[in-house]
Amino acid sequence: MQGRRYILTISCPDRVGIVAAVSTFIASQKGWITEASHHADPQSGWFFMRHEVLAESLPFDIEEFRRRFRVIADEFGMVWQIADSLAKKKVAILVSKQDHCLSDLLHRWRTGELDFDLRCVVSNHEDLRSFVEWHQVPFHCVAIEQTDRDAGFKQVDAILEKHGAKTVVLARYMQILPGWMCDKRPGGIINIHHSFLPSFAGAKPYHQAYERGVKLIGASCHYVTPELDAGPIIEQDVIRVDHGDTIEDLIRLGRDVEKTVLSRGLRLHIQDRVLIHENKTVVFQ
Amino acid sequence: MQGRRYILTISCPDRVGIVAAVSTFIASQKGWITEASHHADPQSGWFFMRHEVLAESLPFDIEEFRRRFRVIADEFGMVWQIADSLAKKKVAILVSKQDHCLSDLLHRWRTGELDFDLRCVVSNHEDLRSFVEWHQVPFHCVAIEQTDRDAGFKQVDAILEKHGAKTVVLARYMQILPGWMCDKRPGGIINIHHSFLPSFAGAKPYHQAYERGVKLIGASCHYVTPELDAGPIIEQDVIRVDHGDTIEDLIRLGRDVEKTVLSRGLRLHIQDRVLIHENKTVVFQ
Amino acid sequence: MQGRRYILTISCPDRVGIVAAVSTFIASQKGWITEASHHADPQSGWFFMRHEVLAESLPFDIEEFRRRFRVIADEFGMVWQIADSLAKKKVAILVSKQDHCLSDLLHRWRTGELDFDLRCVVSNHEDLRSFVEWHQVPFHCVAIEQTDRDAGFKQVDAILEKHGAKTVVLARYMQILPGWMCDKRPGGIINIHHSFLPSFAGAKPYHQAYERGVKLIGASCHYVTPELDAGPIIEQDVIRVDHGDTIEDLIRLGRDVEKTVLSRGLRLHIQDRVLIHENKTVVFQ
Amino acid sequence: MQGRRYILTISCPDRVGIVAAVSTFIASQKGWITEASHHADPQSGWFFMRHEVLAESLPFDIEEFRRRFRVIADEFGMVWQIADSLAKKKVAILVSKQDHCLSDLLHRWRTGELDFDLRCVVSNHEDLRSFVEWHQVPFHCVAIEQTDRDAGFKQVDAILEKHGAKTVVLARYMQILPGWMCDKRPGGIINIHHSFLPSFAGAKPYHQAYERGVKLIGASCHYVTPELDAGPIIEQDVIRVDHGDTIEDLIRLGRDVEKTVLSRGLRLHIQDRVLIHENKTVVFQ
Repeated sequence: MQGRRYILTISCPDRVGIVAAVSTFIASQKGWITEASHHADPQSGWFFMRHEVLAESLPFDIEEFRRRFRVIADEFGMVWQIADSLAKKKVAILVSKQDHCLSDLLHRWRTGELDFDLRCVVSNHEDLRSFVEWHQVPFHCVAIEQTDRDAGFKQVDAILEKHGAKTVVLARYMQILPGWMCDKRPGGIINIHHSFLPSFAGAKPYHQAYERGVKLIGASCHYVTPELDAGPIIEQDVIRVDHGDTIEDLIRLGRDVEKTVLSRGLRLHIQDRVLIHENKTVVFQ
Repeated sequence: MQGRRYILTISCPDRVGIVAAVSTFIASQKGWITEASHHADPQSGWFFMRHEVLAESLPFDIEEFRRRFRVIADEFGMVWQIADSLAKKKVAILVSKQDHCLSDLLHRWRTGELDFDLRCVVSNHEDLRSFVEWHQVPFHCVAIEQTDRDAGFKQVDAILEKHGAKTVVLARYMQILPGWMCDKRPGGIINIHHSFLPSFAGAKPYHQAYERGVKLIGASCHYVTPELDAGPIIEQDVIRVDHGDTIEDLIRLGRDVEKTVLSRGLRLHIQDRVLIHENKTVVFQ
Repeated sequence: MQGRRYILTISCPDRVGIVAAVSTFIASQKGWITEASHHADPQSGWFFMRHEVLAESLPFDIEEFRRRFRVIADEFGMVWQIADSLAKKKVAILVSKQDHCLSDLLHRWRTGELDFDLRCVVSNHEDLRSFVEWHQVPFHCVAIEQTDRDAGFKQVDAILEKHGAKTVVLARYMQILPGWMCDKRPGGIINIHHSFLPSFAGAKPYHQAYERGVKLIGASCHYVTPELDAGPIIEQDVIRVDHGDTIEDLIRLGRDVEKTVLSRGLRLHIQDRVLIHENKTVVFQ
Repeated sequence: MQGRRYILTISCPDRVGIVAAVSTFIASQKGWITEASHHADPQSGWFFMRHEVLAESLPFDIEEFRRRFRVIADEFGMVWQIADSLAKKKVAILVSKQDHCLSDLLHRWRTGELDFDLRCVVSNHEDLRSFVEWHQVPFHCVAIEQTDRDAGFKQVDAILEKHGAKTVVLARYMQILPGWMCDKRPGGIINIHHSFLPSFAGAKPYHQAYERGVKLIGASCHYVTPELDAGPIIEQDVIRVDHGDTIEDLIRLGRDVEKTVLSRGLRLHIQDRVLIHENKTVVFQ
């Protein structure tokens, strides 16, 4: 219904004329802009922009679009990309035993609500093989031995490479990725952490929340960086709890927040709505 | 800190080149855009835009800005305006006996959080005179007699005229305005209704909510039109209630939602962030 | 971990001594109360109570418990029941083609988060057979012909009877049940309606919401009565939307609210936490 | 309307028969229980209870009630109290220059929504004198010199003593109380902290939140203990923010959360709905 769109995202130092340069260029080609968002950050002096343009309204293909746009991009010192809405993101999901996030993502994927190319699911346990395979999605089980974790992660990495996964989703994957895996995929690994970061980073956040007696618990979807639970936050949400809720209740209530927040974060990511700048995100909803 | 800005808002039938025409015009004058928002409504085929431009970045004053912009506006058949951030909106508040909304608005006004020009408060009761006058704001009491309501409203209207009020805020003013007052000020009267419209329009919404046994109650800030509680909605919010809450509890809990929703709606209005199209609003947050 | 519990729920006209009579009776048997909730409704003059008692703390079985409690119940004119936490509720799910609620409920059921006895799924379409049968749950397809709807519903009713389903969940079952099916199962049929009732009852609530320009959309879980979308509400929630959201966006965003609200409502129901009085519910969270 | 009530709150080690002992005692005196709440904490093995009893339904006064209840209390090793709904809590409010919380509390107090006995307002600045005195509430200004903070706090303490304040509300009082003041009033000092604790304890929480790029900001109402921002939490809430919000926006948006959370927390406190156990609260809504 919406038609193929090219999605142009840029970030660069702020100055007069960026919007005009970009929109004049698009308009001079009779490009039909279906969505446009800007943000100027007064503190960093940085400018961010995202445009969706109807592909069929332009007189050239995406390669030519990129070629021509490069002139403007160079002039303003832009970090930029032009994505094609038909080129679905290639995604791998990593999971352990708990499947509430996986099950939720698979539903959104199989009904087309989340429009990505699911290449494979990788787990350190066999438990979810049958459910994943019912979806006709490749399932790989790679145990992570505590005595040689790197050996396991090399195997995982090889699987991701083989399937061409560009986006890796940690859907409650209860293993900490080694630094080299994070460094290799900047802005390419999305995690759901089961707390309202920066509170309760690290292990057992619901136990920490219970001990502190907080009245809300939350979840945070963020990009993974080598520093644990400290990467740029994409999306967060919370739910109310009270003294009557046991740790098991917190875990149960938290699952609903986790899966909602993860799916929202992933949606924003695959639609190229998240721009990373230093350790923060600009999210064009 | 932010400096004087000109706020350009437009709505017109959607077609290629609107954004480019507007931003090229601004850029050609070296105008510094500090905020830009667009919305294309695929259903109505209508386009909406709002730009904030730093006044000092432009080589002309607001009158010249308007003169030059008219050419573009005519080309695209725009409904448009250019507002000056230094020209504060002239506001009158109408209130009855309950003062939670009034008290909240006065606080935001006296601390500068809501940056408008408060011309007067009009009430059909004397109760709040002292509190309003402590703020050094003119207070007028006009009784509305049920036998001749129009006589009262003519007096109210004259007071509004005398004070030059362009925005009228019904802050729990428990009187239904006559049609002629609504017709005279399209998009100029803002009401807070104590329900999540369209549920429970009309009288005693909390009683209606209690009878129905809803699990959330709400409030709606909307522009007033001659049809009761049916005008374009600017902002809404809700709060959770349960079986243990009496009607008095609903009224108490609702007050917090009412005052928050009204202040948010008024803020959006005075910053020219609300564009009305037919019976709906486009709100550029 | 928690052990078997007997769940005693009562409602009766309010008067002095109800709590004392009940808790003295339980304590005299050395019953260990793990949870106790009361509610006195000042408007109707009705009293509601729910107790959970550890089964093993009592010197008799559930039949004897009921026999002995009847004396107190008769004295106070109670509507009452004693449920056994080990006797899982027998549930049937009715669904059409959309499976977000079904998929969500099946996940919660297969992981034990929602602890009920799922007898069967009935649909008016074949689409979801494979997914349901992967769960080893009986799937029945019964077409509802508009020319003879009653014939179809008689078949559905027979299937429910055959499977002994006591709780029927309409998980986006896009058919209006005939009055006789509702009358036959008072408090036994749970529906999820995709609006914040009483707004937008009936067909196409998201279209209605879009037309009205509301700033929040919601979902309501309620017991089904012969009057459409007018039964006692168990749970509701909302999510924020804005002018940029198309009807398709409302439908997508609404799905998350629908499935969350339905699962919460069903959870409360199967734990005997919902007491119906006239057209409202008392919900002991 | 509701009549005088005695509010009995207890906490003690959990065992069989507590509820029965208490409710039998009350019922034997024909006491009419208007509200009853229990909580058994399985982790600490501790039991909590709150009853509201209509005073006029009992054949004795509060002193006799206490005398008779002591027998049960001793049997179960209870920490307990019986409060009189007519004996309003004596409250002092401490504030600096920002008055959004103060203004909100004064409104709730003068309209009777929050039913406490406001003894005085103490500030380290003169700014708010006129507004407070308009309410005919004593206002004291005590400067806190950084070279001798204790001198100032001794003065503040003397004022609190003189006015007989039992509850001290820090309504954005930008001074850290000395340990001896906290120790002297366990469970008697309520603070509003402008973050979702335990995130961003200490100074400038909105700046910390901005730096971290969180997508929600919050506020926490808690009892003050000598350890900064680490006391038992009574109530918390959050509001959504995004990349477009500057620190000034966070501060503005946060004010609404702060005042709502503080007023809710204070309401719960003055109605004896908050029981403290170790570093957590049981809150009987």
